[in-house]
Amino acid sequence: MNVKVEVICIGNELLIGKTLNTNAHWLAKRATSSGADVNRVTVVKDDISEIATALREALCRRPRFIITTGGLGPTFDDKTLEGIARGLNRKLEVSSEALKMVREKYETLLKQKKIDKIEMTPSRVKMATFPRRTHALHNPVGTAPGMVADVKQTSVIALPGVPPEMEAIFDESVAPMLKKEAGELAFFEASIYVGGVMESSLAPLIDKVMHDNPLVYLKSHVYTKSRPQVEGKKSHIELHFSTTNEDFLTAKKSLNKAMAQMSELVQENGGTTSTAETS
Amino acid sequence: MNVKVEVICIGNELLIGKTLNTNAHWLAKRATSSGADVNRVTVVKDDISEIATALREALCRRPRFIITTGGLGPTFDDKTLEGIARGLNRKLEVSSEALKMVREKYETLLKQKKIDKIEMTPSRVKMATFPRRTHALHNPVGTAPGMVADVKQTSVIALPGVPPEMEAIFDESVAPMLKKEAGELAFFEASIYVGGVMESSLAPLIDKVMHDNPLVYLKSHVYTKSRPQVEGKKSHIELHFSTTNEDFLTAKKSLNKAMAQMSELVQENGGTTSTAETS
Repeated sequence: MNVKVEVICIGNELLIGKTLNTNAHWLAKRATSSGADVNRVTVVKDDISEIATALREALCRRPRFIITTGGLGPTFDDKTLEGIARGLNRKLEVSSEALKMVREKYETLLKQKKIDKIEMTPSRVKMATFPRRTHALHNPVGTAPGMVADVKQTSVIALPGVPPEMEAIFDESVAPMLKKEAGELAFFEASIYVGGVMESSLAPLIDKVMHDNPLVYLKSHVYTKSRPQVEGKKSHIELHFSTTNEDFLTAKKSLNKAMAQMSELVQENGGTTSTAETS
Repeated sequence: MNVKVEVICIGNELLIGKTLNTNAHWLAKRATSSGADVNRVTVVKDDISEIATALREALCRRPRFIITTGGLGPTFDDKTLEGIARGLNRKLEVSSEALKMVREKYETLLKQKKIDKIEMTPSRVKMATFPRRTHALHNPVGTAPGMVADVKQTSVIALPGVPPEMEAIFDESVAPMLKKEAGELAFFEASIYVGGVMESSLAPLIDKVMHDNPLVYLKSHVYTKSRPQVEGKKSHIELHFSTTNEDFLTAKKSLNKAMAQMSELVQENGGTTSTAETS
């Protein structure tokens, strides 16, 4: 029984190619290594209707978690909470829990003499204006709190887009939720690197190994460093083996068996294998 | 009238956090600078049903272009053409056009003595097995051709996942299609960097500038370099101004007017602005 996760990233900057989506990469890695299964990443604009639609579509697929990033800040273009409210058909209201967290941040800034007085302006109250029946998640490094809403079998979690804030809330509040659901499930992976065989010649060998090792997922990656790598005798190919399993020994044994079989097949076909990247 | 584009990235490696999705970033940047409007990026697994579903959903939103990346290679895990065929409800067949392109690649390798003979194995024919009524796009640097299918008002374009191959096919075949549709439309952007004002204090100023400059989209980014940046007097914030317009002079004038107004408002509120990043 796997723990399905979807990620929704919100931000025009991702869709105009201004910002590389490192948040999706970081979240996918962390969620996978917690034993969860990331099924889809969706990137939409800072637009209430786009956010609401993407959220409703994701809810229809019934993942255990939907994690959004971006759009929780104080400015006009931060529309995630409004989008989620519309998607869930819930009204927005000031969350006393979130407001307390926001106020505490400004109290700290006041003590540190970084500001002269605390004004809970509309922009600051906005960061605590949540869809009804939701909870706030403490932000250890920034101002905007995260949010969590339980919707039938799905927990919808909203995190900021600023990477250190997103990561800190994830590690403090979200990772324990994922771990609790995933239990003993864990992700195992390893690679071997192949030389002297073309990817198209490897294809039937990969098919055989996948067929013989149903617990293991095997994927080939043509290995390009700085320059284009036309398929040919000198291609380097990475074969990536992975499995999600609750039993460490079974997982390790399955991975090792598949890797040994693959190495043997490659060598029989005149290729070389190594467990470290070579140039 | 904007030219809507959706991107669908296919690959387990993106969803387990093994690979950073630089393809989506590159495509978003190129498509935007061609005057097109990227509305959504979706990332799904190497799974025929997931690919077919994502494609159908995207077609329902009626973009002018859907560009997929990944899954065109010779191995079992390359499932994009099968997924597209299912999504479009079309049968797969060997495309003589694509097969010719694949064969020519192996002929070149034979001439370069990188291979000893040409065998059109099932894995190699697979790269030329396209959904019916589609065309092949020449791959200048790799083996697997791209694919284009016209589906009502939408062109569905499949590109490989290996970045240099994806980029080469895009530049040679896809960019001209986008440019033709976008006509004179072009994307203009510029940033100013703000110091000494908190993002939450900037919020009402941003609202005012956006209201007064309806052609310009303005977004604030809290500026983190290597360390977390707690909101405070020393925060650095980037304000990014952008517009898509067919008239260069109008676009430039709109951007400049919005930037000048914003700088003035920031200075009135005790902040500093510059047009270059400062540390």
